[in-house]
Amino acid sequence: MEEKDTDVRKEFSDFLEKENAIRTALTLFDWDNETLAPEAASWRTAKAYGVLAAAYQELFCGEELGTLLWRIREEGSRSPLEKALALRTERERDKLVSIPQEEYRRFSELTAVSVQRWSMAKKQNDFAAFAPTLEELLDMQRRFASYRAKEGQTPYDVLLSDYEEGFTEKKLDGFFGELGRGLLPLVQEVTQKNKKQPVSCDFLFQSYDVEKQRHWNKWLAAYLGFQFSRGVLAESEHPFTTSLHKDDVRITTHYYKNNLESAIFSTIHEAGHGIFEQGNSEALTQTILGGGSCGVHESQSRFYENMLGRSRAFWTPIYGRLQRSFPEQLGDIPLDVFIRAINRSEPGLIRTEADELTYCLHIMIRYELEKRLFSGQLSVKELEQEWNKWYEEYLGVTPKTAGEGVLQDIHWAMGEFGYFPSYALGNAMAAQLYAYMDRELNIEKLLQAGELLSVSEYLREHIHRFGASKGMEELLSEITGEGLNAKYYIEYLQGKYT
Amino acid sequence: MEEKDTDVRKEFSDFLEKENAIRTALTLFDWDNETLAPEAASWRTAKAYGVLAAAYQELFCGEELGTLLWRIREEGSRSPLEKALALRTERERDKLVSIPQEEYRRFSELTAVSVQRWSMAKKQNDFAAFAPTLEELLDMQRRFASYRAKEGQTPYDVLLSDYEEGFTEKKLDGFFGELGRGLLPLVQEVTQKNKKQPVSCDFLFQSYDVEKQRHWNKWLAAYLGFQFSRGVLAESEHPFTTSLHKDDVRITTHYYKNNLESAIFSTIHEAGHGIFEQGNSEALTQTILGGGSCGVHESQSRFYENMLGRSRAFWTPIYGRLQRSFPEQLGDIPLDVFIRAINRSEPGLIRTEADELTYCLHIMIRYELEKRLFSGQLSVKELEQEWNKWYEEYLGVTPKTAGEGVLQDIHWAMGEFGYFPSYALGNAMAAQLYAYMDRELNIEKLLQAGELLSVSEYLREHIHRFGASKGMEELLSEITGEGLNAKYYIEYLQGKYT
Repeated sequence: MEEKDTDVRKEFSDFLEKENAIRTALTLFDWDNETLAPEAASWRTAKAYGVLAAAYQELFCGEELGTLLWRIREEGSRSPLEKALALRTERERDKLVSIPQEEYRRFSELTAVSVQRWSMAKKQNDFAAFAPTLEELLDMQRRFASYRAKEGQTPYDVLLSDYEEGFTEKKLDGFFGELGRGLLPLVQEVTQKNKKQPVSCDFLFQSYDVEKQRHWNKWLAAYLGFQFSRGVLAESEHPFTTSLHKDDVRITTHYYKNNLESAIFSTIHEAGHGIFEQGNSEALTQTILGGGSCGVHESQSRFYENMLGRSRAFWTPIYGRLQRSFPEQLGDIPLDVFIRAINRSEPGLIRTEADELTYCLHIMIRYELEKRLFSGQLSVKELEQEWNKWYEEYLGVTPKTAGEGVLQDIHWAMGEFGYFPSYALGNAMAAQLYAYMDRELNIEKLLQAGELLSVSEYLREHIHRFGASKGMEELLSEITGEGLNAKYYIEYLQGKYT
Repeated sequence: MEEKDTDVRKEFSDFLEKENAIRTALTLFDWDNETLAPEAASWRTAKAYGVLAAAYQELFCGEELGTLLWRIREEGSRSPLEKALALRTERERDKLVSIPQEEYRRFSELTAVSVQRWSMAKKQNDFAAFAPTLEELLDMQRRFASYRAKEGQTPYDVLLSDYEEGFTEKKLDGFFGELGRGLLPLVQEVTQKNKKQPVSCDFLFQSYDVEKQRHWNKWLAAYLGFQFSRGVLAESEHPFTTSLHKDDVRITTHYYKNNLESAIFSTIHEAGHGIFEQGNSEALTQTILGGGSCGVHESQSRFYENMLGRSRAFWTPIYGRLQRSFPEQLGDIPLDVFIRAINRSEPGLIRTEADELTYCLHIMIRYELEKRLFSGQLSVKELEQEWNKWYEEYLGVTPKTAGEGVLQDIHWAMGEFGYFPSYALGNAMAAQLYAYMDRELNIEKLLQAGELLSVSEYLREHIHRFGASKGMEELLSEITGEGLNAKYYIEYLQGKYT
């Protein structure tokens, strides 16, 4: 009995080691593909990637793992950690077992080339060039999701729940409904006010030397608490964060010569993700429970980007440094003018550059479109036109090109549908979190004193160290005593913009 | 029978796909580790790396592959390519089967951290800090080699033959003996002459803006024929080349603010390797026969670096461009003075910065030391002292620190022993090649006209496309009608320096 038990542990730990090795390799390929790999490389590299992804699926689908998980259940787990690992393994197994091998491999290979196709189509503003790939990705994901859908679940529900457990169309319809009722009138009001009194922000769009921006953003990430001995800041078309483990966390940003703001807020956003990953616990990193759920992840990035990064208190100790780096452009701009500029609200076309107030409208559009694509109400062919219609309606702007419209985001090109709502959930969680945290910490005072580490320390203690072992609802209940509640976010925006 | 045959092909192609996938992933980890990975990452990443390396070994060591190879032999190969792939697989299998799994994994994990330990020790000029790791690597490699040694082979022979098939201590003793007899008196003569008439080269060591160097070297690599749509030029402590396949070839260089020459010749050298890899044939890339043997690889890098890159004809059409990039430093320096400076000979401490004349002396020292380390005549403890003694004797210089002495090269830190001779063999092959090529092409004329592509076209046709499917002796016989012959190299140097 004793011996059998030891066998089980050994087998499970062997499985976890292999799982980690292949996943880490796939992560590195993805990173490399988006940051450095040469243009013509991807279709060949995709072959190797596809084989590894197939090996990953195989690892989960074998009879042996089924038996092993059954034995762990029968014998009882030795620790809460083991239990959590077994549960997560089981969930992943259920997911992978349901997809036929050939289809899974085909999907993996496709995602290894689709990003470059998207990138090319985006450069050329040619949605039609990317549409067939998108259609294929959508078909596959819809089919995969339908294999897994349980009684009462739509395929889209399946994906939503992958990114943040327990979330469904129904729940999100409610959430976005509440958000819409709170935000849409506020946006109109603010937009009207701005037309009368436009906020000056031209100075953010002068010529800013890219090399100097690089230095400044690197300093900024470190100031926020991102540790460079255990991480890197690189560049990519679309800023993102990934990690091989807690001691190898990679964030990217994107520099534009005529835009100081873009790289700064991308850096702060991704540093928020990165600090989360670096704060994972010893026990969870390099396991299937490292990282974090998507909604919680976005709560951290948006917390850093908006709650902290757009506040006056945050900039008080460091604005002088920014001025010294760009004296010609900012020397005569007082802190207050800078703060107003980075907090201006103006309905625009680009999600990643949207202000806090209009940001969720971008998400609501994507949510409505994804829902319709999955239910079959909307076809990929009609997508660009439909996209533009919603933008006109919600934000009063119309994309002139596919690049600033339907092709702007990388997510669909990576085969990720159902991810976007995480951003809105993250925003809401961030506001709720701030309200509670502030009672304990006095965040403004800490920011004014440049004590960013006290903030990240709190987040590490209450959120980061749990990695993906706790979802949004669980963490919020523990910290705030209630589940996700949109009212904090609405109140926060109302307070800020009126 | 027909069906069985199809099975064999399918199984072998599945094996080759998996082999390629894991090898490609390991290559990417190595690349990443040396170019980008954060300082504290390597020991954790090494776990994933170790698991993948073990999977690679397992893939080769199973009964199934043995049976499969036996069946291919029995049934006869369908094509010369299949035969070559099967033979190479068999050779690799013999090698991997001989090493116990646990030891192989331990070695793989060690090499994933040893480079960073070396890099740290080098920075701190502390050989003692690295010596235990080096000893462990040496012990393992010696043991692995002894497992594989056939009748009459020394363990060191086994490694020499891994890098360039058919080469042994005995053969190399002869080669280096001839080289030494030709070079040592020449070096003394030139050194004496230089003492009387020193070559002016201070201008190469003024302050050169690194960003401008970056631009210039990128242009230079493209000029040489390195294709950036299928490759990248990055930076690392120790310049090197690697590739995921022919359409993803990665070379690095290293910039120094006070040294223009270093990055330029590293770039040319690595571009030589890179052009080789990019020239691999469609059929061989992404197989175990992609890439190229080490000696042949070094012949290409040294061919570009020295035969082409240090010639007057090469610089004639492009020196003006270099002057325009660095007008303050080079505006007043005529081409002739520049050419003399980059061809000066001066015994120095650093192999990678050695001139053509003294370069092989650096290799001969490493060869003698490796031979003694493997035979047990020399211990790692005595290595630094012994290194310094040989430098004093062969080159008349003594390292003041370990960084400019025994710790200067990355190879041993990667567990690579027996590689160094490839450089000398490569030099000799390059000279022999040049002598024959020149009869067909008139290389000087092509260089003067900036027609580098005609040169790479010739090399692709006669060398590159064969990847690792042909070794040095075979290629040389085909092109020059004789095996490797040191006399071309000695004559070339005598002609150049007297």
